[in-house]
Amino acid sequence: MRVLILGGDGFCGWPTALHLSNLGHEVGILDNLSRRNIDNELEAGSLTPIRPMGERIRAWREVSGRDIAFFNMTLGEDFERLVALLRDFAPDAVVHFAEQRAAPYSMKSARHKLYTVDNNLNATHHLLAAMVESGRDIHLAHLGTMGVYGYTTAGLKIPEGYLSVTVDTDFGPTRQDILFPPNPGSIYHMTKTQDALFFQFYAKNDGLRITDLHQGIVWGTQTRETRLDERLINRFDYDGDYGTVLNRFLMQAAVGHPLTVHGTGGQTRAFIHIQDTVRCIELALASPPERGERVRILNQMTESHRVRDLAQMISRMTGADVNFVPNPRLEADENELVVANDQFLALGLDPITLEDGLMDEVTAIARKYAERVNPERIPCVSHWNAERSQAATQARAGEGPGREASMAAGQAAR
Amino acid sequence: MRVLILGGDGFCGWPTALHLSNLGHEVGILDNLSRRNIDNELEAGSLTPIRPMGERIRAWREVSGRDIAFFNMTLGEDFERLVALLRDFAPDAVVHFAEQRAAPYSMKSARHKLYTVDNNLNATHHLLAAMVESGRDIHLAHLGTMGVYGYTTAGLKIPEGYLSVTVDTDFGPTRQDILFPPNPGSIYHMTKTQDALFFQFYAKNDGLRITDLHQGIVWGTQTRETRLDERLINRFDYDGDYGTVLNRFLMQAAVGHPLTVHGTGGQTRAFIHIQDTVRCIELALASPPERGERVRILNQMTESHRVRDLAQMISRMTGADVNFVPNPRLEADENELVVANDQFLALGLDPITLEDGLMDEVTAIARKYAERVNPERIPCVSHWNAERSQAATQARAGEGPGREASMAAGQAAR
Repeated sequence: MRVLILGGDGFCGWPTALHLSNLGHEVGILDNLSRRNIDNELEAGSLTPIRPMGERIRAWREVSGRDIAFFNMTLGEDFERLVALLRDFAPDAVVHFAEQRAAPYSMKSARHKLYTVDNNLNATHHLLAAMVESGRDIHLAHLGTMGVYGYTTAGLKIPEGYLSVTVDTDFGPTRQDILFPPNPGSIYHMTKTQDALFFQFYAKNDGLRITDLHQGIVWGTQTRETRLDERLINRFDYDGDYGTVLNRFLMQAAVGHPLTVHGTGGQTRAFIHIQDTVRCIELALASPPERGERVRILNQMTESHRVRDLAQMISRMTGADVNFVPNPRLEADENELVVANDQFLALGLDPITLEDGLMDEVTAIARKYAERVNPERIPCVSHWNAERSQAATQARAGEGPGREASMAAGQAAR
Repeated sequence: MRVLILGGDGFCGWPTALHLSNLGHEVGILDNLSRRNIDNELEAGSLTPIRPMGERIRAWREVSGRDIAFFNMTLGEDFERLVALLRDFAPDAVVHFAEQRAAPYSMKSARHKLYTVDNNLNATHHLLAAMVESGRDIHLAHLGTMGVYGYTTAGLKIPEGYLSVTVDTDFGPTRQDILFPPNPGSIYHMTKTQDALFFQFYAKNDGLRITDLHQGIVWGTQTRETRLDERLINRFDYDGDYGTVLNRFLMQAAVGHPLTVHGTGGQTRAFIHIQDTVRCIELALASPPERGERVRILNQMTESHRVRDLAQMISRMTGADVNFVPNPRLEADENELVVANDQFLALGLDPITLEDGLMDEVTAIARKYAERVNPERIPCVSHWNAERSQAATQARAGEGPGREASMAAGQAAR
């Protein structure tokens, strides 16, 4: 199979490219290096020493004997060049990671909101329009997020994309499958719910074959392929914008800082290991929907945990203390989350669990590279709206009602 | 009240500006004249002789003694200028018409799809982010469309924005209000369903006060204010992209051409007269939602008709013949449409009916300006996807199965 990986320099894209290349597929990467440029903007960087794209590709050729093509371009800008690429590289499948993917980054300022919307929506739309324009029958696998589900009624297991509901009509109750009603918690998540509407339209109007993977929070750093040579190492983000809750706890533990839990830590989140991510994409590409079929939606996650339980798990492993600090996000303090992931299990996914894999992250990544950490970058400094921003400012100044919690507010973990 | 009309040079925007100015409000218009520029691109134009914006505003000052401010700028481009405008003009309300609003135009080519998405989504998002950034409490009234509703089960009356559904959970069935599941029929309609997600997010996260008006197809040309002086005359579009079904029937009747009905003409559509549009906006601005309230959604329409019944109504009035031609749109041939519009009726709307107002359009507009018509511009030449485009080409060449209908395919009315 020929596969084009959009955003193939990123945290999920790079190991996916290597995994698919290792399986014998012809792999190309399209990326504009925006994630590295955002590191420059934020004065942050990967804990692990990732190499420039050219070096990565040369190292992969040395290690595996396989070539990966690299196209340095921005998805969503030059439409004609994209159409030409789809015709010339002639992929059977496209994997689309080329979106700004951090919720806190998307909420930093008006400029970051505008960038995230403009970048993500035009990227996805250019891709879909170019697939039609190319005249080629290409399967699109898009990386979405569990965060598009908003309707978390107690007792409801989150289905895979579509929800069965009953509506009252003049002729009595009628049963219907609808796209799960979205309730995004950030500008970033909102763009993914808007992407879903692009997919529905292009699948219906042009018969495009689309798989949308609603992914949980990815943890872990290395896959079988990225471990083969240190020049192939994957990103590890621990900063307040791009670092996910687990990575930030790991870094805090590694540098001897208490684990900072937002609010009560009662938020339940879905997780998946990066090795399972690349395996899921392999499985999704092997089972594309038929032309004319509705958008196939799979929940790409393997387990759910409350944030405070994660903190306790890491505390047990490392001896770190746990602190509770004010939550910069506008969200419920406590939520349930039971998620269906039957489709990937049926396709043969055998998940890596947190209990099994987490200690390896502590020793092989967090402790090994701890001397590269910049502790100032760990706090989340984005606030979801004017009220939360004001509360944080007052807490820092010791004026507000949140004074008790303020001592740790500067180091709030996501 | 101070009101800023975004897209105030357009078909709905201009009469709204005059109506609100006449009521004594301070009115400003923001527009980049894109609708006039698209006329240049399409080599089409308003049947009625609309005047340049400067002349319109001078004429209104002469007629009414009132000033309207004009800001020539593109919503969605210069964010800082928009924030400054919201601070300096200091509107209490903003009415947002500033989107590309023709379904066939949005489907003409890949370039038109990209333009419609980029223009409409960035326009709406810049506006919302600027409202937050300005720090001012502004009520936004957005012009949406009935076309966002897709779920037209027989016996279901389309509610105003939100649908009550029952979902099965582990604890038994649970009742929930959800945003009506969208099923847009064109790229244009799709952008409006994506706008709805912007509104939901900004109302929830930032407490913005937002009214979304789901409008039917607007018919009629003049309002009380635009009739006061010929220099104030409103647009009348009859071309295949921007002319709605009713206007194109009127033009066909005026120039002695058979009325061309797409498919079986069994498509049911919702309608509203332009005079009722401006009255509805007046009513919506007088009853804004509270801060923290969910997005208020009103169906802005007054009656529903099947397209073939409309054709027969106009045929009765004018003696024109009716022809059935292939449908360029991908849509069901026949659909029901029963729409709730209780909120506007409760606010005091007293609708103008097609039976009462249509003959005036025939004589005062279509026949009066018939010498300005370009008959070549009446056909719809956009096709919804590759299959429909191919079918039309074959029909024109006399090769395809649609040969019988092909004689009129070049003059297909929307």
